[in-house]
Order: sequence, then structure tokens, then C-alpha cells
Amino acid sequence: MKAVIVTVGTELLFGQTVDTNAVYLSQRLQLLGIDVMYRHTVGDNPARLRRILELSYDDCDLVICTGGLGPTQDDLTKEVVCEALGDVLIRHEETVEELNAFFKKLERPMTENNLRQAMLPSKALVFANHHGSAPGFVLENDGRTAICLPGPPREMKPMFEESAAPYLKTRSNATIYYRLIRTFGIGESMLETKISDLIDAQTDPTLATYAKEGECSIRIASKRNTMEEAKQAVADMLSVLRERIGEYIFSDDDEELAAVAVKKLIEGGISISCAESCTGGMFAQRLTDIPGVSAVFDRGFVTYSNNAKIEQLGVSPDTIEKYGAVSEETAREMVRGVKSVSGSRLAIAATGIAGPEGGTDEKPVGLVYIAGALDDREVCKRILLRGGSRGRIRVHAVLNMLFMVLKLIGEPASGNASRA
Amino acid sequence: MKAVIVTVGTELLFGQTVDTNAVYLSQRLQLLGIDVMYRHTVGDNPARLRRILELSYDDCDLVICTGGLGPTQDDLTKEVVCEALGDVLIRHEETVEELNAFFKKLERPMTENNLRQAMLPSKALVFANHHGSAPGFVLENDGRTAICLPGPPREMKPMFEESAAPYLKTRSNATIYYRLIRTFGIGESMLETKISDLIDAQTDPTLATYAKEGECSIRIASKRNTMEEAKQAVADMLSVLRERIGEYIFSDDDEELAAVAVKKLIEGGISISCAESCTGGMFAQRLTDIPGVSAVFDRGFVTYSNNAKIEQLGVSPDTIEKYGAVSEETAREMVRGVKSVSGSRLAIAATGIAGPEGGTDEKPVGLVYIAGALDDREVCKRILLRGGSRGRIRVHAVLNMLFMVLKLIGEPASGNASRA
Repeated sequence: MKAVIVTVGTELLFGQTVDTNAVYLSQRLQLLGIDVMYRHTVGDNPARLRRILELSYDDCDLVICTGGLGPTQDDLTKEVVCEALGDVLIRHEETVEELNAFFKKLERPMTENNLRQAMLPSKALVFANHHGSAPGFVLENDGRTAICLPGPPREMKPMFEESAAPYLKTRSNATIYYRLIRTFGIGESMLETKISDLIDAQTDPTLATYAKEGECSIRIASKRNTMEEAKQAVADMLSVLRERIGEYIFSDDDEELAAVAVKKLIEGGISISCAESCTGGMFAQRLTDIPGVSAVFDRGFVTYSNNAKIEQLGVSPDTIEKYGAVSEETAREMVRGVKSVSGSRLAIAATGIAGPEGGTDEKPVGLVYIAGALDDREVCKRILLRGGSRGRIRVHAVLNMLFMVLKLIGEPASGNASRA
Repeated sequence: MKAVIVTVGTELLFGQTVDTNAVYLSQRLQLLGIDVMYRHTVGDNPARLRRILELSYDDCDLVICTGGLGPTQDDLTKEVVCEALGDVLIRHEETVEELNAFFKKLERPMTENNLRQAMLPSKALVFANHHGSAPGFVLENDGRTAICLPGPPREMKPMFEESAAPYLKTRSNATIYYRLIRTFGIGESMLETKISDLIDAQTDPTLATYAKEGECSIRIASKRNTMEEAKQAVADMLSVLRERIGEYIFSDDDEELAAVAVKKLIEGGISISCAESCTGGMFAQRLTDIPGVSAVFDRGFVTYSNNAKIEQLGVSPDTIEKYGAVSEETAREMVRGVKSVSGSRLAIAATGIAGPEGGTDEKPVGLVYIAGALDDREVCKRILLRGGSRGRIRVHAVLNMLFMVLKLIGEPASGNASRA
């Protein structure tokens, strides 16, 4: 099936509202095995919408419209779609009842213009709106299919999932299953090199890699006749990937690094505290984004000044003098200080140069030392992100800190301090 | 001038890449006084791009394309645009030289296909690319104008500002000047009420309000014959707004709250430290996002556990026992602790319930106490964001903390501790 996505609304053309519907529908249709040929945005203008529909049905069979289903005069999507598919609008009594119930629940009177929303194409399959007032619908005629959904994403997305997606599945012969595998610590080109034979040989499942903010994701997708077959094919491919690049995989179910770290800390009953210099609280912020983290997170220190490092963490002034605040020695003393002050089993510390100023030839902007300790095991890692902005350097450092937490928990304890 | 925006790239139709170019161009064109009639996205497919161009020039004079200018076989925008405007591609020697210089600087060999990027329409005005390799251009013929820009936003945006916007200004008779005023602490509906007479009576300048993550912005725009007149009209309106709602305005030039706070701290030579419970490091993170903050930011404490509050900040266990960790009393003891431990002139502390668990009838999710102190002045504020997510509650608290920093700096010092 070849599809066109049309988003309707003058506010979209002004750029006031970001069109998140278009991206959402693109992704969802692709997973349903439907090819998207065009995306269009038009204002609340019937003539232009009519021209777009004509263009669309020239070489596509499905048009999905969002927006323009509301109660006001400029909501004209239904009229235009109805006309293009040779149908007429009639009053849909079930929707009238639902509108009455909707406004009663809100304790607001229903104005006359709200009844416009109950005027629907006579041959349409109506989609109820459980998060707003305007219903959606699908209409088919002579090889042309139109699906109309409301504009607000909080109404559109649930209606797509509850009504449009099940309808589209009945129209598609194939079943698609996919998983998003997330990796850290390996660049996209290196990742592709390690699995290039799998990518080159792919028929089904297919593999696609995506780079994202210091991470790489791999999408494994399988299109089979039954869901069981598709799931099995994806599971088999995942086993192969685990053999090749298992050490970099932190989630096989599209979880954030921080969420996985907090989950493992809670599972292991491991308390954690941290000290941050260049990351300025971002590590603690990411951890505490996750609900339930209070079971394991004790405290964090943002020791931005040298005095703070010395006074809060007991870093030796001599160490800072001799090796600098950005050094392996200082990072290690910071992490030991966190552990001793907080009593947490796991501690993480980072010190670096986020820029844009403050870099030297020897210690350039982007250099960060990360130290971690779990019980009696201590590690330290030097990372360098050349050419990154202040923001990217900080995020990159925080992701490395989170990954270090996972590695510390995952690796067997040993009696010796080791160097990663 | 009526315009169409066309973004080219199969990856956009998959929804892998969010089309930020379309929103950016929509906003920029509106400010230049150019009406956007349609936005289209097509894959790397010359036939479909051709059809979109035909449709566009039926009722518009300007088409702006992004993407498809690169060195590979599927980059076909130039060819199709050139054909639609009756021109031919020729080798642009200046671009060849620039490509040679570009690759020399990267210390990479220039492959033959990179020279495709130097093939440009014979009658085009070429736009140099200072952030990548593919140049852009504008081409005019017989009332049709096409502007082609590269796809990557970090190349497209500077090229638009440096080359396309100046060109478009020469084509437009009107001059538009605007300023974005940012306010905090007043809801959008209250803001509109306070300036509704100005909004209702507006001809020029125009006023538009936007709500955003706990803040409200007001755009003042004026379209006049000269820039001088437009600037004066905007300045006059800004004076009126300052009289009405001056206490809520923190920037008249679209700056972030954190950036304004850091600027004022640096100007005043005021050192700052903080203690955070529910915000978990986000306040420190926002401050340290701003380059140069190390001149004033000393340290931060993420005192998530009660023990951390007691041990790091000297909060009394009795206070926590009697009033709870989320209370005005605890917030005030936290801020006094920060001041005394750090020695900073300004201190900010927050304690609250970010949820989703942990709320009670008396202390619901969304309740946050924020305490601030500058020299011998101390304030404390209770905020409550009902029905917010964990993320929104935390952001709302951090914005209130930043606004408190501004208020503390802005208000005259007094000898008494006051209650805000």
C-alpha cells in the first residue's frame, strides 16, 4: 500500500506548532509495512487541500489526514475528503450521543457548532475519540482510502493505535515485529563494520543502524505471515548480535541508559552517590529523572571550584597543584571522597573541560576523566570528544558515567583496583 | 510573495529524521513577510519532486528546497529544479576550488563524486557553504524563483541567514523587525488578560503570546517601510509592556532564564551555590550549561536522602522529624547550610515531591519549597504544580529557582529576613 500523509492547519505553516504527527505517522506506517510517498502540510484552505488529494490519489491508494475535524468554520477536512471520495456528510447519531456525554462530563454546555463534529461521511467507519470531542473515520471508495484523524497529538495518537492501526493491519497481508537494540561505546561506522556481512546479506529480518547522541541503535525488523514467526526471526538475529557485539548492548527493548542503570542498581540493592565537575549536575539529574531512584541514590556533589573538591571530597590540594583539576589523579581522589563521605557502595566522579574556553594543547576541550568505584574495585577512564560543543561534551561524559555504572555492576568483583 | 517549502529525503518519510528545517523555514519566512502556502516532503525521487514543483508554481512564486544537493547518485534536487526553471547545470569553477580547499583542510582526499556538487545552474546565484561541502543557490526565471539549500540543519540554517535571507529581503518591499520578550511567573491566560486591549487593538506592531514550559513569551513585530520605523514601533510597544507586566519580564531579547541569571551574577560579582533534593541536580546543570559560569558558581549539593541533608548541610534531624523533609523549615535550613558550607554570597535550595509516588493529601505530588538567600536576606516560596508529570514538576521548580536568583539580585538589600 502506498500512502500520503497530509497535515492540515494554518498554525503549522507559521511554524508556531511543530508537526509531530507527521513524524509519528511516518514511523508507524513504516512498521505496518506501508510505504509513505509524500508528506504535505496545507493551511485551512479547501481549494489547496482538494489539489493535494487529487495529486495524492494519482499514484497512491491511502491518504491519512490529521487536523481540521473540529467544530469551527475553518475545519474543512471532512467536507473536502468526502467530496474527493464521492460521499456525502450525514448526521451520525451515535456521535451526537457521545458529544452530549462528553460535554456533560466536562460540566460545560454543548454549543450548536459542536454538532458539526457529528456530521460524518455516510459510508465511513467512524473512530471514537476517547481523548477529545472530534471523531475520526476511514472512508473507502473505488480503490481510494482516506483516514481522517484529529490534529492534537494527544487525541490523534491513541486514535491511531486503537482504531486506524487495527484497520490498516486488516488491509495488509504481512505482520511486522521489531525490536530496538541500544548500544554504547561503539561508533556507528565501527558497528556497521562488525555486522556488515549481516547487513549485506539481509532479506528478513532487516537490520538498520541509527546514531543518536553518543549511542547507536539497531532496529531488527521481521515481516512474516504470523507474529510468532516474526518474533522468532527477530530473536534469532538478536542472538547473533549478542555474540558479535554483546559487550556494547545495554538494552534490547529501547530503554534509556539511565533507566537501565537505575533498574540494575535497585535489583542489586546497590546504593550510589556521585561527584561532578564539568558535567555540573547532569549525571545526578539523569539518574533522578527515573522514578523510584530514591531507593538507591543517596547524594551528589557538584564540585565546580577547586575549593569544593578539596572541602567536600577531601581531594588533596597537592594533587590538584601537581596534576591539575582535570586529571586521572583528581578523578580518583574525587571518587574515593564520594565513597567515604556518603558511605554508598557505588560512586562515580567526573572532571573535565567542557569548553568553549579553558583548553590547552596538553588538555584540550573535550577531555574528561571518569572514575568509578564499587565496593573495593576502582576504575578510571579517559575520554576525549574532539570538536564537540559544550553541550555535547557534557552529554557524552554523562553517558560514559552511566555506562560505567552498568559495567561496574555487571563485572565480577575482584580484590584489585583495575584500570579500564 | 507566496512560498512553498519542499524538504527532500527518503529518511524524512521513514520518520527516522525529524524535519526541523521545515519549522525553521516556516518561522523565518513569516518574519520576512512571506506567506507559506504548502510544505511538502518527498523522497529522493525525481518524478515526484517534479510533480511537486509543477503544483507549487501553479499558485506560488517561490519554492525553497532543502536536501538532495550532496555528492551521491540519489541527490537529484538540482537537476529537477534546473529543468523546471529551464536552465542547465554547468561546472562552477569557484566551487571546485572551494571543494579542494575544504577537503584539504579535513586532510581527506576528494573523491570524484564530490565534484558533482560543483555542477550548478548556469544562471544561479551561488550560496557558499561555510559548514559543509554542498553549495546552495537561488535561481530565477520567468516569475519562478527557486532557492536550494543543503539538508543538514547545521549547514542549512547558517546558509539561510547568510545568503538566502538577505536575498529575500531585497525581493520584499516591507521591513519586519521583531523582538521576543520572555516572562516568568504569569500564566498565558492572565498575561493575555492584562494586555488584551493591546492585542485587540493591534494593527502594527502586532503582539502574539506563546506558552512554553512554564514561561510565556510575547512576540512584538512591526512591518514598516524602513527598519528605523519598525524598530521604533517595537521599542514603543515594549515600553508599554514594561509598565503593565515589567515584574514578569526577564528578557527582551529571547534569552534563557539561566543565561540571564548567570549574566547578572557575573555582572554583580556574586558567587552562588545550591542544594537540591527533588530537582536532583537539574538546577546546577542548567546553570553550568552557560559558558563562563565558573566565575561565579562554586558548588552544588544533591541531597537526595535525609542523611545527606543532615550531614552535608547541617539540617537538623529534629526539623526533618517535626516538619518533614518537604517543608519550609527544611528548605530554609538547607539554604543556610549551603551558604555556610560554601561561603557563597547567594544560595538556593529546593525540596519537594516530584512523584509519581510519595504524595499525601497534605503534601501532594507537585509541592516544592524553594529557599534563597543573598548576603543577609532570606526568602522562601511554596509552589504547587498539580497534575504535572515528574519531568514537568522538576523543570517548573528549576525555573522558579532561577527566577528567584534574578529577584534576589534585582531587589534592594535589606537587613531583615523577608518572606516572599
